[in-house]
Amino acid sequence: MVRNIYLSVDPAQRGWAADTANYSAPVELGTPMRSLAVGRVVASKAEGFIAGDFVYGFMGWQDYALAKPSQILSRIREPAAPLSAYAGILGINGITAWLALKTLGRPARGETILVSTAAGAVGSIVGQLAKIAGCRTIGLTSSEGKVHRCLEGFGYDVVLNYKEANLREALARAAAAAVDIYFDNVGGAILDLAIRLMATAGRIIQCGTASISDWSAAPQGLRNEREILTRRLICSGFVVFDHVGKFDEVQKELVSLIDAGMLAYDEDISHGIDTAPNALQLVYSGANTGKKLVMVG
Amino acid sequence: MVRNIYLSVDPAQRGWAADTANYSAPVELGTPMRSLAVGRVVASKAEGFIAGDFVYGFMGWQDYALAKPSQILSRIREPAAPLSAYAGILGINGITAWLALKTLGRPARGETILVSTAAGAVGSIVGQLAKIAGCRTIGLTSSEGKVHRCLEGFGYDVVLNYKEANLREALARAAAAAVDIYFDNVGGAILDLAIRLMATAGRIIQCGTASISDWSAAPQGLRNEREILTRRLICSGFVVFDHVGKFDEVQKELVSLIDAGMLAYDEDISHGIDTAPNALQLVYSGANTGKKLVMVG
Repeated sequence: MVRNIYLSVDPAQRGWAADTANYSAPVELGTPMRSLAVGRVVASKAEGFIAGDFVYGFMGWQDYALAKPSQILSRIREPAAPLSAYAGILGINGITAWLALKTLGRPARGETILVSTAAGAVGSIVGQLAKIAGCRTIGLTSSEGKVHRCLEGFGYDVVLNYKEANLREALARAAAAAVDIYFDNVGGAILDLAIRLMATAGRIIQCGTASISDWSAAPQGLRNEREILTRRLICSGFVVFDHVGKFDEVQKELVSLIDAGMLAYDEDISHGIDTAPNALQLVYSGANTGKKLVMVG
Repeated sequence: MVRNIYLSVDPAQRGWAADTANYSAPVELGTPMRSLAVGRVVASKAEGFIAGDFVYGFMGWQDYALAKPSQILSRIREPAAPLSAYAGILGINGITAWLALKTLGRPARGETILVSTAAGAVGSIVGQLAKIAGCRTIGLTSSEGKVHRCLEGFGYDVVLNYKEANLREALARAAAAAVDIYFDNVGGAILDLAIRLMATAGRIIQCGTASISDWSAAPQGLRNEREILTRRLICSGFVVFDHVGKFDEVQKELVSLIDAGMLAYDEDISHGIDTAPNALQLVYSGANTGKKLVMVG
């Protein structure tokens, strides 16, 4: 039995709640909304877990969760960072940023990377990791405040507000030669723009499709296969839950970068479980500032 | 100076002739149409080439070509197969099939591969190489005659005429569990169908986009990034001219498979340079039967 403390709000939840399966089964009506959370073990009959342990896993939108060990992604015996970090930068968001960038992006010194949702829970980490890897980093975000945060806090070289009138021209100018890596959390029209700025042999990491909240109506867009062909792109999908075995190792890497002052992260915490549904909507509208969490305990 | 013998007709020529650059500069008005060809050296001032050599390279739609060594892809001193084969199965078509399948498709025994243009100059080789690699092979082609040829000549396990009324259902049935590799020469609506039948971690090789002859109007289609994400696909573009250094080595592999009776190939030869423009149109309409060549010498 776990007392939930922080509920994690993630764009992926929109997909989990859809009534068609994608990479995971749909949440059943009448059951708690699926959600990651950080909580504390109150009592345990499960081997390897004792009362007092902090855990990160699928505990759902509820105050207390009866969890099986298979629902737990990591056990946090001695927190090396504030607990909330385990639901964000040390949870699926930072781990996604690390693994997707390193394994699919393969950033090389001097390359240019474009990051959508540049100030977001995943994007902000991608931008900083790419910068550490020696890339020129371009970010897209949704407000002037976030543009400023990306430049000052996350070290992007260029940041654009994607709502600006001449995004196409501004992005082409920012991309200069071309984009070697596009780390895409949004899909949609921005993907259509970005793909047409890719360098030969560029990599697109499809990590999210947050610009489109409903895929049931089969949205239309520009055909992109000709760009993939003529630019010899590699477009790959990434789902972090395929890599649970690597979570502990990547967490350690992230902790040491945080400790060295090389990784900044923002959190946007609301209070009370009744704020959870709206919190997901906020994330889709881009109104959150940093990793969205709901504190419940 | 080369006397052209076989002009090679390739879907890629449609892109070369467009007035927007893609992976190569547009053909300039007033110059011969860009084309691969097999011909015989009449006279040479170039080191490494002597009169009597057969060559395969960019000789254009003309009877005689003044070629620089950089235009030549391979020199054929002692033909190991009929000359026409050097413009097809031993030219870019067979080499594309080999390299794109092995390096991007990475077929494993027991996997299922779907090949569009299954009877075509590239597709027919892909299907046979995948079968040799132990895959279950599904082909798409454009006529009942070609369905028969694919089954009897190229060893496909299942072949569908993509013009049939219920292609979606027929393809889903043929795919059974799912498609591990989609070798795509056509793009468009068939790609949209196929991507929704892909297995987790499936590979799509974008080798051509022959279902759409004009990309200047930015065609629309289903958005596919959600499929790439949730199925964790890897979609890669392939252009054979990136791999010219491997041509000789792959040619040798293909020759030994032909010699062993393990690779069949079809040719569809028209006569006279005046048949060349229409030959390209035929290829786009799927009316050719096998590698389309124009014999001029």
